[in-house]
Amino acid sequence: MAAAQMAAASPYTGRKPVVDRMLAMMREAKARGADVIVYPELALTPFFIMHWVDDLAEADVYYEKAMPNPDVQPLFDEARALGIGFYLGYAELIGQGEGAKRFNTAILVGKTGEIIGKYRKVHLPGHADYRPELPFQGLEKLYFEVGDTGFGTWQAFGGVVGMCICNDRRWPETYRVMGLQGVELVMVGYNTPTSVPWDTTFDHLTEFHNHLSVQAGAYQNSSWVVSVAKTGRDGPLDLIGGSCIVSPGGEIVMTAQTREDELLVAACDLDLAQKYKRSVFDFSQHRRTEHYRAICDQIGVAAA
Amino acid sequence: MAAAQMAAASPYTGRKPVVDRMLAMMREAKARGADVIVYPELALTPFFIMHWVDDLAEADVYYEKAMPNPDVQPLFDEARALGIGFYLGYAELIGQGEGAKRFNTAILVGKTGEIIGKYRKVHLPGHADYRPELPFQGLEKLYFEVGDTGFGTWQAFGGVVGMCICNDRRWPETYRVMGLQGVELVMVGYNTPTSVPWDTTFDHLTEFHNHLSVQAGAYQNSSWVVSVAKTGRDGPLDLIGGSCIVSPGGEIVMTAQTREDELLVAACDLDLAQKYKRSVFDFSQHRRTEHYRAICDQIGVAAA
Repeated sequence: MAAAQMAAASPYTGRKPVVDRMLAMMREAKARGADVIVYPELALTPFFIMHWVDDLAEADVYYEKAMPNPDVQPLFDEARALGIGFYLGYAELIGQGEGAKRFNTAILVGKTGEIIGKYRKVHLPGHADYRPELPFQGLEKLYFEVGDTGFGTWQAFGGVVGMCICNDRRWPETYRVMGLQGVELVMVGYNTPTSVPWDTTFDHLTEFHNHLSVQAGAYQNSSWVVSVAKTGRDGPLDLIGGSCIVSPGGEIVMTAQTREDELLVAACDLDLAQKYKRSVFDFSQHRRTEHYRAICDQIGVAAA
Repeated sequence: MAAAQMAAASPYTGRKPVVDRMLAMMREAKARGADVIVYPELALTPFFIMHWVDDLAEADVYYEKAMPNPDVQPLFDEARALGIGFYLGYAELIGQGEGAKRFNTAILVGKTGEIIGKYRKVHLPGHADYRPELPFQGLEKLYFEVGDTGFGTWQAFGGVVGMCICNDRRWPETYRVMGLQGVELVMVGYNTPTSVPWDTTFDHLTEFHNHLSVQAGAYQNSSWVVSVAKTGRDGPLDLIGGSCIVSPGGEIVMTAQTREDELLVAACDLDLAQKYKRSVFDFSQHRRTEHYRAICDQIGVAAA
C-alpha cells in the first residue's frame, strides 16, 4: 500500500499541477511495489470550505461534474498502464441549479482503471451558517450533503476493503459498520487543521487525536488502515501531516515525517487482520447487541 | 479520583488481607484529597477463571453471596467514616443450585456508604468449554452469565458517572452507550494477562492495547476514564499493570509505574468533558444513525 501525502493545491492553477504531482507519486508507488495508492480527501483542490459564499454555485469550480473527466483522465490512464489501483478524494457535483447535489466523495479505482467503488462522506464537521465572529469558516455542512452511500466494502486487491473520509475516522461507528462486513483494509484521506478558531481547547492534541482515532479503529476491527493527509499551508489554515499506515494490531507501521508531498509504502498482509477477527474481536462470540440499542436509536445525548 | 492498582489476591487467605490493603489505600486516597477510589475487577479474589471445575459450585468460595457482607463491611464503614466513594469489582452469586446466577459485577458506593449503582459485565472474553490442549483456561463465559444491567450511568460525585469491567473497555459500544447518556467519568477495573496461550499474535502489544482502548473511549465520548488493574503474578498468569487516569482529550494524565499495589490520585475536572461534547463530538449535530444500523442489527461479520 502507498500513502500519498500531499501539500495543498493552489487555488490559482487549476487541476493540472496537482494531477502531475499525483502522477509522479503514482509512478514512484509502482516502482516501490505498491498495488494501491491512497490520495487525500479533496485531493484536487484547496480545502475551500473555510470561505463563505452567498451562492454555492460560486464554488462550482472546485467540484468535479463527472468522474473521470479530462482533468483527471491521466490518473486513470496511468493506473491502467502501470497496473495500480487508487483512492481519490474529490468534491462531487451532480446536476445543477436548484436540483444540484454536492458530496465530499472518494472513489476506489482498480488496476485496469475502472471505478470499483464510491463513498460519500457521512460525518460532516463544522457548521452550515455564516459566523461573522470567526476569522474563517468551517462550512462542510454547507458545501456538502450528508453522504448517501453508507459505509460499504468491496472485494478488491485480494481482500475486503473499505473507505471513509476525514472526520469519519474519529467515529467508531465508521469502522464498526465496515468491521461487520469483515473489512481488512480501510482507506481514508483527510484535511485537518492544526487549529480551528471555534474550538481551541485541545489544540495541543490535534496530531495525537489523528493517530488515536485511526489506531483504535484499526485495532477494534482488526483491519489495516491507510490514512493520508492533505498537509501544509492552505489559505488561512495550517494542515497537519501525520499520514500513516496502521496495522490490525493498531500499531503505526509507518508515518510521514514532513508536511509536504511524501510517499509511504508498506507491505500490508491482509491475513494478519484475520488473526484478531478469530480471537479477541470475534464479533459473533462477544458482541451483545441487546445492550447497544441506544447507538442506533438515539442521535444526541439524553440523560439516563 | 484515586485509582487503586492492586497486586493479586492470594487464593489461600480469604478476604481479610485484601480488604486490609484496600482500607489502607482508601485512607491514603482520602488523605490525598480523593472523592472516589476505584478498585480493580474481581478485587477480592484471585482471577480464578483460568481453572476448570466440573461443577461451578466448587468455586462458590470466590463469589459474594450478599453485598455488603461481613468480609467487606469494613470498606463500607470506612467509606462512610472518611466520606469517600468507591468502585468495587467482585464475583456475584445470586441464589443456589440449579437456579444460581453468577455475574462479574461492579458496584458504585457513595460517600455515606450506600450502594448507588451496580453494573454486570457484558463483554465476557474467552470460552465456556474445557480445552485440554491449553496449559490453563480462560473460562469467563463459564463462570459468569452475560450482564443484564446494560451500560448505565448515575448522577454522582458532581457529574454523570458510569462503570464497565475489563474486556468491556476494548469495545467502542461500551463507551458510546454511556456517552449517549452524557457520561463524564467512566470507572473500569481489569485483570489482563501479559499473554494467553490461545492467542499470542499480539503479545507485544498487550499494554499498548490496554491504553489505546481506554484513550479512544475517553476521547470519542469526551469523558474521563479511571482504569485500574489487578496486577502481577496470579497463579499461572502475569497480569499487566498500566492503571491510568485518562482525560476527555484521551491523554494519559497519570499511569502506574509498578506491578504492585499503587495509588494514583489526580484532579479530574468534569467540566472539561463538556468542551468536546459541545464541539467535535456534539452527537446531536454530527451522528448519522441511519448509517449505523448494522451495529445493532447484526452480531457477527457478514459479507457485504
